Amino acid sequence: MKLANLVGDRFKERPADCVVDSHALMVRGGYIKYVANGIYSSYMPLKRVTRKIEQIMREEMDAIDGQEVTFPVVMPATLWQESGRYSSIGSEMVRFTDRNDSGLVLGMTHEEAAVQLVKDFAKTYARYPFMIYQIQTKFRDEARPRAGLIRVREFTMKDAYSFHTSQEDLEAYYDRAYKAYDKIYARCGVPEVIAVKSDSGMMGGSVSHEFMLLTPIGEDSIAICDECGYSANMEAAPSIIEVERDEVSNEIEKVATPDQESIEDVCRFLNVPFQKSCKAVVYQKNSDDSYVVIFLRGDLEVNETKVTNFIGDNIHPAVITAESGLCAGYMGPFGLDAKCTVLYDSSLKGANNLVAGGNETGFHYTGLDMERDVKDAEFGDFAKIIDGGICPKCGKKHIHIHRGIEVGNIFQLGTKYTESMNMTYVDEKGESHYPIMGCYGIGVGRLAASICEARHDDYGPIWPITIAPWQVHICALRAHNNPEVKAAADKLYNDLLAKGIEVIYDDRKASNGVMFSDADLLGVPYRVIVSPRNLEENAVEVVTRDKSLQEKVNIDNAADTIAEMVRKAIAEMNNVQ
Amino acid sequence: MKLANLVGDRFKERPADCVVDSHALMVRGGYIKYVANGIYSSYMPLKRVTRKIEQIMREEMDAIDGQEVTFPVVMPATLWQESGRYSSIGSEMVRFTDRNDSGLVLGMTHEEAAVQLVKDFAKTYARYPFMIYQIQTKFRDEARPRAGLIRVREFTMKDAYSFHTSQEDLEAYYDRAYKAYDKIYARCGVPEVIAVKSDSGMMGGSVSHEFMLLTPIGEDSIAICDECGYSANMEAAPSIIEVERDEVSNEIEKVATPDQESIEDVCRFLNVPFQKSCKAVVYQKNSDDSYVVIFLRGDLEVNETKVTNFIGDNIHPAVITAESGLCAGYMGPFGLDAKCTVLYDSSLKGANNLVAGGNETGFHYTGLDMERDVKDAEFGDFAKIIDGGICPKCGKKHIHIHRGIEVGNIFQLGTKYTESMNMTYVDEKGESHYPIMGCYGIGVGRLAASICEARHDDYGPIWPITIAPWQVHICALRAHNNPEVKAAADKLYNDLLAKGIEVIYDDRKASNGVMFSDADLLGVPYRVIVSPRNLEENAVEVVTRDKSLQEKVNIDNAADTIAEMVRKAIAEMNNVQ
Repeated sequence: MKLANLVGDRFKERPADCVVDSHALMVRGGYIKYVANGIYSSYMPLKRVTRKIEQIMREEMDAIDGQEVTFPVVMPATLWQESGRYSSIGSEMVRFTDRNDSGLVLGMTHEEAAVQLVKDFAKTYARYPFMIYQIQTKFRDEARPRAGLIRVREFTMKDAYSFHTSQEDLEAYYDRAYKAYDKIYARCGVPEVIAVKSDSGMMGGSVSHEFMLLTPIGEDSIAICDECGYSANMEAAPSIIEVERDEVSNEIEKVATPDQESIEDVCRFLNVPFQKSCKAVVYQKNSDDSYVVIFLRGDLEVNETKVTNFIGDNIHPAVITAESGLCAGYMGPFGLDAKCTVLYDSSLKGANNLVAGGNETGFHYTGLDMERDVKDAEFGDFAKIIDGGICPKCGKKHIHIHRGIEVGNIFQLGTKYTESMNMTYVDEKGESHYPIMGCYGIGVGRLAASICEARHDDYGPIWPITIAPWQVHICALRAHNNPEVKAAADKLYNDLLAKGIEVIYDDRKASNGVMFSDADLLGVPYRVIVSPRNLEENAVEVVTRDKSLQEKVNIDNAADTIAEMVRKAIAEMNNVQ
Repeated sequence: MKLANLVGDRFKERPADCVVDSHALMVRGGYIKYVANGIYSSYMPLKRVTRKIEQIMREEMDAIDGQEVTFPVVMPATLWQESGRYSSIGSEMVRFTDRNDSGLVLGMTHEEAAVQLVKDFAKTYARYPFMIYQIQTKFRDEARPRAGLIRVREFTMKDAYSFHTSQEDLEAYYDRAYKAYDKIYARCGVPEVIAVKSDSGMMGGSVSHEFMLLTPIGEDSIAICDECGYSANMEAAPSIIEVERDEVSNEIEKVATPDQESIEDVCRFLNVPFQKSCKAVVYQKNSDDSYVVIFLRGDLEVNETKVTNFIGDNIHPAVITAESGLCAGYMGPFGLDAKCTVLYDSSLKGANNLVAGGNETGFHYTGLDMERDVKDAEFGDFAKIIDGGICPKCGKKHIHIHRGIEVGNIFQLGTKYTESMNMTYVDEKGESHYPIMGCYGIGVGRLAASICEARHDDYGPIWPITIAPWQVHICALRAHNNPEVKAAADKLYNDLLAKGIEVIYDDRKASNGVMFSDADLLGVPYRVIVSPRNLEENAVEVVTRDKSLQEKVNIDNAADTIAEMVRKAIAEMNNVQ
């Protein structure tokens, strides 16, 4: 491909609306074009990157006995009513009707379609286990698309579904899928992706892992133990707090705290450390708007996922009305008189000499003793794990919080879908059971953007060779007025193509600066410079995009040498265990 | 792949709801699963077929300098409002709103998205010509999905868009695309696909061709001249009628034709040949429901496409009310007194001694002379070309009407989209122009089904080797209780895989009959039978699915021999000029 013919603009200025680097580089490099909020078209360079990522996924899914299929993008509402998710999923699912007023949805995941596809086939144990997967367009009407391809509404996803007759078999397969994911990331050039325990959310099931690429621009917080390697999404990480109970409990006393509504203000006003306070955070249930009050130690934050899982309902931050009986800014466990769900975080268990709300505007209690004053409290884990906190695995205070992008996930779904959709099989004894499912997803565009985020400099992406849009980028300097350069570059281009190497060839009438900055934006691993000066030495110059290599290669065997470099580099990356 | 693990059921009974063979075989062979009206999931065998078809398309599009991109499935309504198609396309386009009440549509074609993608890039003549294409999911809310994958609502399409600065350049590229299409069909195993002139319909533009696979189950009618090879979709074929004017014109006379409402009945009643009658066909315009009356010779049929193109509005069959002034069943050109558009087909020009409606219930005229009695009539081509009719190219009466499936189309769009969306470029002289576009589409699933329709027998598809789900199908007869068969078949399977051959391997405990009928349904070109009897001769048996070859191959070099057969067969099919 000649660069002169490549459709898409490349430019230097960082677009004002691009917050993260991968977004800015993909716009600047002619990879993507904004169409609507969270919806993009892809130009050829990105299409080539994503096709290679898809092919790596396909090979690794085939290697664990996956069968590639296709589910529809548009599905009948009835299919989602069967599983119950038609009503349980909110406005992120697009619903519409066709010309005959039949309800349809846009697929945001395909568990229902997977069950429907294999339900009739897999009626006997002998047909298990099996895994089917697809690489297909999905649409989620995200409230807040952001960061270019990191969080979009329309995206391509590799999603896989496995079916088993026992939990052991699922677990064995889950382990294979886990390893296949590690291989996919390694082959895509980001072996540093880590698996963390996660919350299963709307997917159902119990055990699940997210694959995280650690980066400051990530949306997820991950708790990692320096000591033992434990890692989990903050949503799923247990918060363990050593409660330090004072030997002497002071008397409980109501004190005036005028205009001190936040617990931080109150602690400063009363000169008490945050750890000796009890704060209230209030939500409302999505289903009936009833109130949920969570009490926890003043320096901690509520983990909303834990609350949601505990009460079995989605929640939103509360709007506190006069009729609620709640005293906004001054709520405390002692003397609270309101109809609401009250949850106590374990960080308060046994604590004493606490500052807490007085349930009266302008007043707090001091000397609150949870054992003495809040006798009927039951405690649970509703707080976020903290940086420097206790590792749930090794028990040491070595937890650090990192930011990460979720670039994949795997779930042990259990029988959530097979039960609700009444998919059964008959075992050796003629008894009927629900098959056990696993599911395994990776978003293609998000992975491409994440790799760009992890592998770039100020001038452009540094694509790993396995997924680079091209393998070699020829810059023919002054080709337009130097026939020797033009002839040598043309020959090298054709020789490399003949050897099956993917080449982008720049023979434009352009300055060296423009040529090199365009090459930086395309991020091709091997750059070959054909110039009058190099030709005087009967050589071309090979420079890698990551600057790890810069050498002159004799022009007579340049094509062979460069093709060999490319092949070796690809083989090394694909050779993962 | 072992057949024992293949997900999907295969069975003998033709499903009652399958009207065409390809549909029945795809259901019977475990290729597709019905999800909703016009919406299917694909199992692995079909996925493998369509992926190969897509790869052939990709190679041929790349060969004519196409750049693969991706447009969104979901697009903002505003984009379609720009081109005007948001209102001009009917209910086949799915429209919905997102969580913020923004209007969205599902892409049924991507001209608007293509213009949006390249509008900013292609502002100067130096960037032309170029072509971009994608292979992507589309959705059209068809009123009548039918025939399995032949006419569906959700489908995958290869759609390409080219941009030019002159009509000559478009035409030269159009010719390259035309030839690329011929190659695609030949490489997919259906070289008999023919290009016919077509009507451009909702796409706009003037010159267009459809690629047709002739088959009795096709939805389209195609006029082909035996003599000169002229071919056109019946919608687009000019109807040429030699009008035989009698030497003597009789007087016009009103006669009673009680209860004779159809022109056929009237002709029989009056003992007049159909060709000596003038019939009326009445439509209403979609925009305002006003009436459109077409008069044409009694033995001809109205070509609605020609009427639509002439009046610039869509039409539907009329409901004739009392207030209309039209006399249902008895309309004629003489004495017609109603507010409506009246069109005369050329088949009436100069005709005399005609029977025509009397514009009074129960009465017709005889002796109508179009020249004498309908003086202000202007004539046009509003009739369908007929079998045995005159060829518009060579003028001979050698037209025959065939049925065909449209398996692709190419359009010279002109500036319809660039003008409406205000895409311009500046030429050498600094003058601004609208680029000229072409577009080029092939539906992947429909092509697969059409190939199945053209290449099958009662027992299953006969897939061309370039697109077959696998290249070799090993049947190991009695492998479950004959260790020699099992060992020989296992070895052959592994040897073929090692040589890069795609093999489906049947080592099930199943009867020969079940094995062979499953193999027929999978339609793999080379079947290799490993059996106790063959092994006695130190051989395996190779049989092609189309029965053109059946021979014993020495087992010692079976893998080599078979791999060579496969490679040769593929190379022959791909070697098209």
